[in-house]
Amino acid sequence: MREVFVEPLTAEAFAPFGDILEAKGAADVMINQGRCGRFHNQAQLSFVDGAAGISLFQSETCALPFALELVERHPLGSQAFIPMSFDPFLVIVAEDHEGVPGCPRIFETQAGQGINLLRGVWHGVLTPLYAPGLFAVIDRIGEGNNLEEYWFEHPYQVTRRSR
Amino acid sequence: MREVFVEPLTAEAFAPFGDILEAKGAADVMINQGRCGRFHNQAQLSFVDGAAGISLFQSETCALPFALELVERHPLGSQAFIPMSFDPFLVIVAEDHEGVPGCPRIFETQAGQGINLLRGVWHGVLTPLYAPGLFAVIDRIGEGNNLEEYWFEHPYQVTRRSR
Repeated sequence: MREVFVEPLTAEAFAPFGDILEAKGAADVMINQGRCGRFHNQAQLSFVDGAAGISLFQSETCALPFALELVERHPLGSQAFIPMSFDPFLVIVAEDHEGVPGCPRIFETQAGQGINLLRGVWHGVLTPLYAPGLFAVIDRIGEGNNLEEYWFEHPYQVTRRSR
Repeated sequence: MREVFVEPLTAEAFAPFGDILEAKGAADVMINQGRCGRFHNQAQLSFVDGAAGISLFQSETCALPFALELVERHPLGSQAFIPMSFDPFLVIVAEDHEGVPGCPRIFETQAGQGINLLRGVWHGVLTPLYAPGLFAVIDRIGEGNNLEEYWFEHPYQVTRRSR
């Protein structure tokens, strides 16, 4: 099975796929009498013929290595994942090559980071490494088919590079 | 100083103020080959002349008891708070009495719960009880004055009822 390796999530590497949501560096504005920093408007939200909504996802956890057989995309909206525990998780994405996903990239977040997938980006299903596997998801609420799936003819083996 | 007491967050008590966001009971739909439950569209989002955005708030923590001097409201949009750690936090709200906040209510969430404040609801500033005090906030991004503050002439003492 072809192997793909977990890599750290960096803004540069992730830029073609979406946004990293994190409280990094200086806040854009201090509020609440200086007690709270606001890191403003971090996600490129986009919803065709619908509106943003907040849903919760409760997922089983995943253990490395595992086989990656499926990616999906949402042509009508961006999709943000906010972990509701202070844990890393895996973000699986792939470039689009004329309607077909390329080789997947496997990013591992740091605790305290969320992500937003740009509209139409190929991505794997939610992949928490740690319980409780609970996420808030900000995505499109609306009618119409907003899901396209792609099953790899040959699954990938997702693993860590041996050190 | 007038005392107000922390009470558990329940859907019934909180209904006039907003939504509880939680993965409770049966999921609305199972996704990801049965590995993940989606609790769908839990927040009554409302944005006047603007759009939803995702910001991160990094707050200092609070210790009980404390003095509550200030509440605020956002006339142009709802505001959701998603804790990014698996910890309870306090949600301070108040009814509106002809433009003036009434006696504050102090709700304590359970780990794994977020909340959405309806548009225009009087509320206290973000009040995490535990570090890291990191939240994702889904609120209105747009121009115009969306903040109204009210300073209580006589602050309230927020405390726990002795057992």
